[in-house]
Amino acid sequence: MAGRTRDERIDGAVLSATVELLGEVGYTALTMGAVARRAGVHRPAVYRRWPSKRHLVVDAVADGLGPRPTPDTGDLRDDLVTGIMTVVDALAGTPLGRVLPALVADLAADPELAGRFLDRAFHPRRATTAATLRSAVARGEIRADFDMDFVLDALAAPLYYRVLFGHLPLSRPLAEQCVDTVLADLRRSGPSDGPTHRSADAD
Amino acid sequence: MAGRTRDERIDGAVLSATVELLGEVGYTALTMGAVARRAGVHRPAVYRRWPSKRHLVVDAVADGLGPRPTPDTGDLRDDLVTGIMTVVDALAGTPLGRVLPALVADLAADPELAGRFLDRAFHPRRATTAATLRSAVARGEIRADFDMDFVLDALAAPLYYRVLFGHLPLSRPLAEQCVDTVLADLRRSGPSDGPTHRSADAD
Repeated sequence: MAGRTRDERIDGAVLSATVELLGEVGYTALTMGAVARRAGVHRPAVYRRWPSKRHLVVDAVADGLGPRPTPDTGDLRDDLVTGIMTVVDALAGTPLGRVLPALVADLAADPELAGRFLDRAFHPRRATTAATLRSAVARGEIRADFDMDFVLDALAAPLYYRVLFGHLPLSRPLAEQCVDTVLADLRRSGPSDGPTHRSADAD
Repeated sequence: MAGRTRDERIDGAVLSATVELLGEVGYTALTMGAVARRAGVHRPAVYRRWPSKRHLVVDAVADGLGPRPTPDTGDLRDDLVTGIMTVVDALAGTPLGRVLPALVADLAADPELAGRFLDRAFHPRRATTAATLRSAVARGEIRADFDMDFVLDALAAPLYYRVLFGHLPLSRPLAEQCVDTVLADLRRSGPSDGPTHRSADAD
């Protein structure tokens, strides 16, 4: 990949190796040594960047989900479906979905790790979706008096719910249902409707 | 508790002791022996009913969530909010919320345990909500052409999402938002609207 520094190339190789190995051996059996071997780097190069396996896996998940899920082309439904489909693709099409339950348990047990995950993966992704929704408010396409945090949760929660409890598979129709249900609500006239009244909490 | 057999009293004491100890020492440090001591029963009485800590915790969570969350009084919004509030109360007001992330990791690692959780806790609760929604379809209050699985997910997923990622707290307004968003969609005229057309997948 042209233009990347040596450090960025090492980071990318280590994160890719982490996702690959998660798919092959699972979270519990994953070791920093095996990641270093797979990435073709020395163990100290891994430990210099990530103090523990948990930190490494958080960054691998953030990298796998991608930092900019939701575009803002002006077609609100299309942009939201594109954003949610990055979650579907990452969770159903890579080892990330299988590692998520173990990661969630680690996050709950380690507030510092949870903060890192929220800062690196969770909130940056939500910020892109929030920006797309605010553009649609500014265009007058959806009402302005909604709870941004709730709408962001409602868009993504059903996907994570299925991955974490395993009762049903992910699919493109599910992503579209999430978006259409939320949009049905946002396109209603609210109690104080109007594109200039911005009560939404920013993410 | 009058009317319960000795076995039911032991079961109840063991499940209550499990939830109490989960709150005090957490999932990892919980032992079957400590549960037996707290419940005032012999260890074999616990092992006779639950082959492992994981099995015991699944049943304690099922017991804590309760088997009949959603009533069917004829007031759809009220009934759905009551149902969702049983999740809020259990996850925010008891140790169950703190133990859920570890449980989710165990479920993903053990398909037999996951089956037990889905059968004992997940699906029985969803069945009560599905029945309440079907009554509302029969009364002509909501459209019939919806995906029952998706609606059941959309009602509960935002709550579990917040507990599992820890980014925001649970609340009654959140439960009401879940219900109102879903109802806004179910009260729209669908492409093939009408209370006699039942395309919803049963849970």
